[in-house]
Amino acid sequence: MSSRYLRKELGTLKPYIVDRAKYRIRLDANESFLRLEDYLINEMKDQISSALFNRYPDADSEAVCSLYAKYAGVSPENIMAGNGSDELIQVMVNTFIEKGEKVVVLSPDFSMYSFYTEIGGGIPVEIESDEEFDIDIDYLIKEVAKISPKMVILSNPNNPTGAVIKREDLIKLIESCNCLVVIDEAYFEFFRETLVDKISSYDNLIILRTCSKAAGMAAIRLGFLITNHQLLSELKSVKPPFNVNSISQSFGEVILKNENVIKLNSDKIVEQREILIQELRKFNDLKLFKTKANFVLIKFEKAEALNKRLLEEDIKVRSFGGGKLTNCMRITVGSEIENAGLLEVIKDFFQKGGKENE
Amino acid sequence: MSSRYLRKELGTLKPYIVDRAKYRIRLDANESFLRLEDYLINEMKDQISSALFNRYPDADSEAVCSLYAKYAGVSPENIMAGNGSDELIQVMVNTFIEKGEKVVVLSPDFSMYSFYTEIGGGIPVEIESDEEFDIDIDYLIKEVAKISPKMVILSNPNNPTGAVIKREDLIKLIESCNCLVVIDEAYFEFFRETLVDKISSYDNLIILRTCSKAAGMAAIRLGFLITNHQLLSELKSVKPPFNVNSISQSFGEVILKNENVIKLNSDKIVEQREILIQELRKFNDLKLFKTKANFVLIKFEKAEALNKRLLEEDIKVRSFGGGKLTNCMRITVGSEIENAGLLEVIKDFFQKGGKENE
Repeated sequence: MSSRYLRKELGTLKPYIVDRAKYRIRLDANESFLRLEDYLINEMKDQISSALFNRYPDADSEAVCSLYAKYAGVSPENIMAGNGSDELIQVMVNTFIEKGEKVVVLSPDFSMYSFYTEIGGGIPVEIESDEEFDIDIDYLIKEVAKISPKMVILSNPNNPTGAVIKREDLIKLIESCNCLVVIDEAYFEFFRETLVDKISSYDNLIILRTCSKAAGMAAIRLGFLITNHQLLSELKSVKPPFNVNSISQSFGEVILKNENVIKLNSDKIVEQREILIQELRKFNDLKLFKTKANFVLIKFEKAEALNKRLLEEDIKVRSFGGGKLTNCMRITVGSEIENAGLLEVIKDFFQKGGKENE
Repeated sequence: MSSRYLRKELGTLKPYIVDRAKYRIRLDANESFLRLEDYLINEMKDQISSALFNRYPDADSEAVCSLYAKYAGVSPENIMAGNGSDELIQVMVNTFIEKGEKVVVLSPDFSMYSFYTEIGGGIPVEIESDEEFDIDIDYLIKEVAKISPKMVILSNPNNPTGAVIKREDLIKLIESCNCLVVIDEAYFEFFRETLVDKISSYDNLIILRTCSKAAGMAAIRLGFLITNHQLLSELKSVKPPFNVNSISQSFGEVILKNENVIKLNSDKIVEQREILIQELRKFNDLKLFKTKANFVLIKFEKAEALNKRLLEEDIKVRSFGGGKLTNCMRITVGSEIENAGLLEVIKDFFQKGGKENE
């Protein structure tokens, strides 16, 4: 039962369920499996020694934005930091979406695009990818024209499928549609194609980036938004003044001053991804989808039984409920040892004929 | 010029202006003048050594909420953490305020209540306090009944005036009005009257607290919301899942495990406040308002000239533009040395007859 104070339109909002349990092997949140190296932790401790805890953070996150701008190859005047990309999605919705305006999202895609659209009073409208989770760009453009949204937002590579849309296709979308286009490049480092070089060529392009994936810093909640001056100034007028705390700013600076770490780590993750894919291919009944991210989506008729078996072994992957994702599991690429632990259970499951659930 | 994408209704939004300049003496942001002691900094460094940077934070901020609950004398099931009170204000607006619904705010009060109300599509309606910045509770109740808002939100002690509303008056408001009542107790520790013991007695009471003032931790952006189970579950369904980063959670835990520090620090700040008030009283032309916070509001005909003089001496206080706050300055209580530096300039200003601006 809701209180009489709850907004009526939120009655249908699906809350984002977080699994807070502890697991022996956790491969469900697309986190990096790499722990920070000691020299970086020591640099962070030095930051703590000199931190002014009693003072508010820099409202503009200037130093960390400058470093991220350098890393991304854009000007510092085109960038703003957020408390994770989550906050930046919410700031975009609050800045641009009027009550009842439509936001096109893909299905499947990161569920928070719809979540924050609904909270902001907008209407998410889903466009489905095909059976291979690919997007036919001409179909997408035609549908967007029909729907006439204020914004299209999509992740590229796609979460949870790992599929990508080609650069020239995205440019076609940006040029043809009459609305904002937001490309969430959270998994950029595992794909290495970007549209940040195009932000000043269009009045309607916004790019999101994050330190939560390849940079291995999910704990500090640090995301970046990159766009043209006009949109950025409007977004900044809506952004909460002291949104990114001083410590996340300064730890972000440490990582970005050592940006080679991000490249090295994403190399290691991609290497493990390719090994994991090779091993998973050995199981004929598993369908693997193409991936350019730090996870692999698989489809398997006995996914529910396999998932049950994995949980018995204290291994957590992401399983999905319905629609085209029925019987799909998204497996984050883990360390060599974590992946071996996973593969061992899958192998054992197949050897026993996957009978657990029959 | 706005882009064609900006929400039309935001054309009137007044951005929150942050002064990012450095000053020799900074008394404009109601920060604590006390730096963290070394043993606390060392405990924080230990936290950094064991932090899992590659993992997302605890979505429920459970450990730090439990500690804050103990500190505040409430149950852990009545509390949620936010990225500063700012985020919690925004979550409340997003959860409860439909487009066009009214939110009553006091004038003067913390400007972010109106800011986030407008961003959320609500309409802030101001009720003015009297010439001494006091609120006649019967007048307030009558006006609220006329306006028929979804929510009343106010800070107690009031920022920027330092004035307080008595406990029994607030209870009268909560019991008589037909809407949510949010009491922002950001400055609680300098006043030591609270309504947290009443959260389960009413279906419409929400309390905000922060670590940015007496706890001296503005840098980590950690605020708390305390309310009944029903409202809390609705607020949690709208809260961004991983809103408080792991480091702010763990540094908050360090402070709250040493909660005697908060009491000791607020004692020191109140002591300096009383000395500052005594000294300021010596200047006959300055009107001082009663304060129960860590700042003092003064009114002075030559406020503009005095402010100019202070800035020349690299001292920053908060000055105000219009309405009843014309010629008012809000001075955060600083350290003994900072306050002496301020008083010296004021004394000199008066000795020269305040002629700078004439």
